[in-house]
Amino acid sequence: MVEESATDDAWRVLQGLSRGSEVEIVRLDGSRWKGTLVPGHELSGARVVQLKLPSGYNVGLSILPSDRVSVNPPAPPPNGVSAPAPRGATGQQATAGGVSLLTTGGTIASRIDYRTGGVKPVKEEGEILSFYPTLERGGPVRIRSVFDRLSEEIGPGDWVALAEAVAEEFRSGARGVVVAHGTDTLGYTAAALAFALPRLPGPVVLVGAQRSPDRPSSDGSSNLEAAVELARLGRLSEVVVLMHEGLSDDRFAVHRATRVRKMHSSRRDAFRSRNGPPIGTVDAQGVHLTPEARAPSTGPVEVDTRMDVQAQLCWFYPGLDPALAERSVLGCRGVILAGTGLGHVASSHLPWIRRAVEGGAVVGMTTQCLEGASDPYVYSTGRELLRAGVTYLADLLPEVAYVKMLFALGRSQDPAVVRRLLLEDWAGEFAVRHPVAEPD
Amino acid sequence: MVEESATDDAWRVLQGLSRGSEVEIVRLDGSRWKGTLVPGHELSGARVVQLKLPSGYNVGLSILPSDRVSVNPPAPPPNGVSAPAPRGATGQQATAGGVSLLTTGGTIASRIDYRTGGVKPVKEEGEILSFYPTLERGGPVRIRSVFDRLSEEIGPGDWVALAEAVAEEFRSGARGVVVAHGTDTLGYTAAALAFALPRLPGPVVLVGAQRSPDRPSSDGSSNLEAAVELARLGRLSEVVVLMHEGLSDDRFAVHRATRVRKMHSSRRDAFRSRNGPPIGTVDAQGVHLTPEARAPSTGPVEVDTRMDVQAQLCWFYPGLDPALAERSVLGCRGVILAGTGLGHVASSHLPWIRRAVEGGAVVGMTTQCLEGASDPYVYSTGRELLRAGVTYLADLLPEVAYVKMLFALGRSQDPAVVRRLLLEDWAGEFAVRHPVAEPD
Repeated sequence: MVEESATDDAWRVLQGLSRGSEVEIVRLDGSRWKGTLVPGHELSGARVVQLKLPSGYNVGLSILPSDRVSVNPPAPPPNGVSAPAPRGATGQQATAGGVSLLTTGGTIASRIDYRTGGVKPVKEEGEILSFYPTLERGGPVRIRSVFDRLSEEIGPGDWVALAEAVAEEFRSGARGVVVAHGTDTLGYTAAALAFALPRLPGPVVLVGAQRSPDRPSSDGSSNLEAAVELARLGRLSEVVVLMHEGLSDDRFAVHRATRVRKMHSSRRDAFRSRNGPPIGTVDAQGVHLTPEARAPSTGPVEVDTRMDVQAQLCWFYPGLDPALAERSVLGCRGVILAGTGLGHVASSHLPWIRRAVEGGAVVGMTTQCLEGASDPYVYSTGRELLRAGVTYLADLLPEVAYVKMLFALGRSQDPAVVRRLLLEDWAGEFAVRHPVAEPD
Repeated sequence: MVEESATDDAWRVLQGLSRGSEVEIVRLDGSRWKGTLVPGHELSGARVVQLKLPSGYNVGLSILPSDRVSVNPPAPPPNGVSAPAPRGATGQQATAGGVSLLTTGGTIASRIDYRTGGVKPVKEEGEILSFYPTLERGGPVRIRSVFDRLSEEIGPGDWVALAEAVAEEFRSGARGVVVAHGTDTLGYTAAALAFALPRLPGPVVLVGAQRSPDRPSSDGSSNLEAAVELARLGRLSEVVVLMHEGLSDDRFAVHRATRVRKMHSSRRDAFRSRNGPPIGTVDAQGVHLTPEARAPSTGPVEVDTRMDVQAQLCWFYPGLDPALAERSVLGCRGVILAGTGLGHVASSHLPWIRRAVEGGAVVGMTTQCLEGASDPYVYSTGRELLRAGVTYLADLLPEVAYVKMLFALGRSQDPAVVRRLLLEDWAGEFAVRHPVAEPD
């Protein structure tokens, strides 16, 4: 702590500080609040500061005349690079060997709108940096907005734009790319990027937040910093999702993009690898990757965004009308079924499935259990579906199989080729099986 | 061990024994195989016996002339009731205060068909008892087949038949009822029975097996015996699912029927309670129920199987065509959406949702995360959906919400009443929230 205010007006000192300053506020009652200054939200009245505590939680403090304040200015990043704030247009320059952060909207780049009580997106680079004051501690980060929407609005067209944007960052010399994305459909986009980017020179790290950055319990800052660190240091050349491993702010799981799913609507550790453990972790000691993580490849980035969206994902359930299921896939070149158990549907659905296959559609089977594999050889139902022409897709998640179907259809008009493509391992989407391992 | 064969023909001794006998086979090499005799499968050649080992695994042993055999006859049940085998028609008699076992088909009542390599159902009571020789150890079990099909074939009409059959067993004096059911749709049927049986005098225990009873790794025997014990002893008056808690054969989880889901296609411990822990366990020490388990009620069983099946379960995903979604719910009185995250769909779906609600349909929202709750108040998308007339169903699983919708529609023609019914707690389907508890 290099400055100290022992006057009765801590508020005046605080007003003069830039975002990212580390401060400690000591009250007459002996309580101490130590943290990093972050922007106050819209309704913060006079004499209120927002502090990000070392725990990752934000707190709003009403500053009393009797408070004392100790201040550290924002820490300069290592390697002698000058401190980033005030920033201006520096984020626009190419950063050879550095990290690019692509924003797409979503909670990680949102704040509470206190008039409506909801969350609304943050669009400006400066605002993102002011919410994440320590983002550039390890080196400069180039920030670019690809689009700006909540993730439930993101679809196949956006996947193309995002894959192109990621490729462009690598072509401009980026070592790694971070994609900040809403968590709702983060898993779908992650799988799409993994399939659209068959060769990568470095890591592509998708990251989100379950709470917006101006909320006390926000996970955005810690997630984003860990994602930047992984993109900057990780010996990795695949698309991954980085999110909280548990409820604490000091450990992050690195999930393979094609084997991850949001398994809780609100917890910080909502994202879980399926059919196997994460392929790595990030913590205070650095980046730790398992041997399963794909090591950096040489050669330029490859991008192949050909897709055909004439496909449906059809969840089976008791009571589902076969006529309705058939109507919902009319005109489709591809259908992914999320069957029960090992990949089953009621036999009343066999006739339309046979007709779809005879009409040239590719019908793939997955399990709605979301863990374990589909297998047509155990029960008579599976063998009947196999005879009807259904392709069993082992342990692909239903969503991942659907995304892969769009790309497979884009790469061939021949159903036999599409079936073969679906069964090939493109991006580690088929798990190495661990027959006795615990899934969670 | 009361008899011993020291001759060179263990095979002759084994042939004379009834199923359920406990034997120990000692080989010249010193190896010992101790277990319960179970029927051999179809291709078991001469001189092969099937033993269920204490671990729960079955093993087929080819009997050598040099083998020695020690034999215990089947244990008589306690309370002086005579041993059940040979059985004949005794299973047909009413068992006041006892346990009824209703079979419906499924793996737990199936065996491998070694000609096709698949699994086919076992229909006869005698065969069930011969597969599960120790089923009646704690007292007689009345066995009745309600229907006989793989669970992916079971639908709303079967739920009615099964609810009536359960009610009939209680009216005949049963203390508890066990329902053996295929695991694929066990969760759907469990929820349906919970909603169709608003008052129960004792436990209804649904149980299944992930492996058929003649396979070495079958879990059917241990699951079924634990289910019978829970039905016989448990101070419980609700519908539950009992399955392996972990991978070992000595501990079973008791899941509330409306909060359980098959989360793995093949593991013994595939069934998991969602949004909270199981409400009990069964182990060698007996039955252990948490305070959340509903205690036995007085008064006769109540059954209300009114349903309207004009409802759809619609999973949202990026790329889902709104026109297609609308077409799939035409004519429906009820729609359950499995949205992303806190319960979102792309805004392009708002118009058809508004039209459906204006047309008198009830549209309910759940989360496809399968854990956590839906909540319309966090994001603008949720508030828009709320304004469109969508009913947010908190932490109901999508499948459970769909099953409940059928019953709610059956109980009223008025959309406002249906909405209110959906939000009422009928059978513990809304979890007590544990804000900081770990889900698994």
